[in-house]
Amino acid sequence: MSEYCYRRRVQFAETDMAGIVHFSAYFRYMEEAEHALWRAAGLTVAPAGAEPGWPRVAAAFDYKAPLRFGDEFDVWVRVVKVSARTIQYGYTLKREGTVIGHGLMTAACVMLDPEGVMKAVEIPAGILDRLRGAITGG
Amino acid sequence: MSEYCYRRRVQFAETDMAGIVHFSAYFRYMEEAEHALWRAAGLTVAPAGAEPGWPRVAAAFDYKAPLRFGDEFDVWVRVVKVSARTIQYGYTLKREGTVIGHGLMTAACVMLDPEGVMKAVEIPAGILDRLRGAITGG
Amino acid sequence: MSEYCYRRRVQFAETDMAGIVHFSAYFRYMEEAEHALWRAAGLTVAPAGAEPGWPRVAAAFDYKAPLRFGDEFDVWVRVVKVSARTIQYGYTLKREGTVIGHGLMTAACVMLDPEGVMKAVEIPAGILDRLRGAITGG
Amino acid sequence: MSEYCYRRRVQFAETDMAGIVHFSAYFRYMEEAEHALWRAAGLTVAPAGAEPGWPRVAAAFDYKAPLRFGDEFDVWVRVVKVSARTIQYGYTLKREGTVIGHGLMTAACVMLDPEGVMKAVEIPAGILDRLRGAITGG
Repeated sequence: MSEYCYRRRVQFAETDMAGIVHFSAYFRYMEEAEHALWRAAGLTVAPAGAEPGWPRVAAAFDYKAPLRFGDEFDVWVRVVKVSARTIQYGYTLKREGTVIGHGLMTAACVMLDPEGVMKAVEIPAGILDRLRGAITGG
Repeated sequence: MSEYCYRRRVQFAETDMAGIVHFSAYFRYMEEAEHALWRAAGLTVAPAGAEPGWPRVAAAFDYKAPLRFGDEFDVWVRVVKVSARTIQYGYTLKREGTVIGHGLMTAACVMLDPEGVMKAVEIPAGILDRLRGAITGG
Repeated sequence: MSEYCYRRRVQFAETDMAGIVHFSAYFRYMEEAEHALWRAAGLTVAPAGAEPGWPRVAAAFDYKAPLRFGDEFDVWVRVVKVSARTIQYGYTLKREGTVIGHGLMTAACVMLDPEGVMKAVEIPAGILDRLRGAITGG
Repeated sequence: MSEYCYRRRVQFAETDMAGIVHFSAYFRYMEEAEHALWRAAGLTVAPAGAEPGWPRVAAAFDYKAPLRFGDEFDVWVRVVKVSARTIQYGYTLKREGTVIGHGLMTAACVMLDPEGVMKAVEIPAGILDRLRGAITGG
């Protein structure tokens, strides 16, 4: 298996007056799945400081079917592309057989320089292996 | 001028523990600017029902520089592409001279059928002219 | 035991630049626990319409200790007070042995009248028994 | 006048499937008004560090009438009670003549000790005078 699965239920506060989940909530769902994958890999995400942080450089979602209050759904996450300083995750959301949508998110590995400005740095050795291990073993 | 400008200030609840605005907030900023443009055009967005609604079919943002608590910034919105049933908006966020990022959002014009299922329909006559009028006059 | 327990993990988007969970998130945590209790009781919460809805008439929280990103915590919920048309829930949030805070939330049972205005109505028979059953059996 | 007024418009993402503003949003509205008052007083709120921060010790809201998408409303904020280390703010939300609800929020003045633990400290001289000046002159 080359994807990690994070299960979630839609909460009331995530719906809007159209009766469906607000489109901005899907970006939080993707991030929750990414962080669950990191925990499964024995890693923790932190803000940039002594340890590198992972701000987003791009995020996108294509909506195929709506989610509604109480729905249980799965966020399938995988590593799509890796460069020296960035990881791109790919996502598929499904409610039982139904595809809810697809997403992409690119995070850059950064440290704060002495003036507190974020600077992209190389991804520390071992992180990608651990993420891939968590995905394969998932 | 072919863009409409919506001014906004970053609120404390929009920041995260990294000390910058959470990446999901930019999608709400884009929607707020779109709705401000609709109001400027004398139009109102409503959930699909007797009137058409405008669920998103795609949303994306590229992050260039962070926003922080208290920052005032501008969301420039324009109509990028139009099909019979969809409008694609383009966005540029700026804080003074600094580009914060670029976004795209596509909304489909839908009505609810008798079973309450959303169906894409043609964009009612006049809406695009009014949006363009508000942008030109902005 | 006269409380229902809902377990939750703090998500990154719920933190703010102070490095702790934003105070407004606790109100969503309380609502999530309430809805989990309703599901455990075989009930569903819906907006007022043909079925009664449950808008809040009061909500309060006293903060004792902060929650941080990644923390797992429990929301203990109980029925504190009942009137003909309202239910008051009481909440205690704990992370392992540490009390995070206490909350109260009062929801009114309402229906929409023909003009679409919410009107308080009597709580349908059976709802309180089912909630109490779910709490005792929890 | 002994209240400061912050004007706001309801955004789409703040509504829920009941068609009204989600009850948790009112706590963000209260905080936005508090921070607008601080800015009007020439002060800035920051997380606890070298400067004191202001975490909440209590927050409450009583809901009288709903807010809906697009509504413009006013948040009236005043200083209700002051102790050596806390400020309690009182709030009234109004949409034209209609009272939307009343709130209370207590913030403690804290600094981080060398271990990074928040400790309540005395409110720095001058802050209350400046807040009161901004309210009276508002």
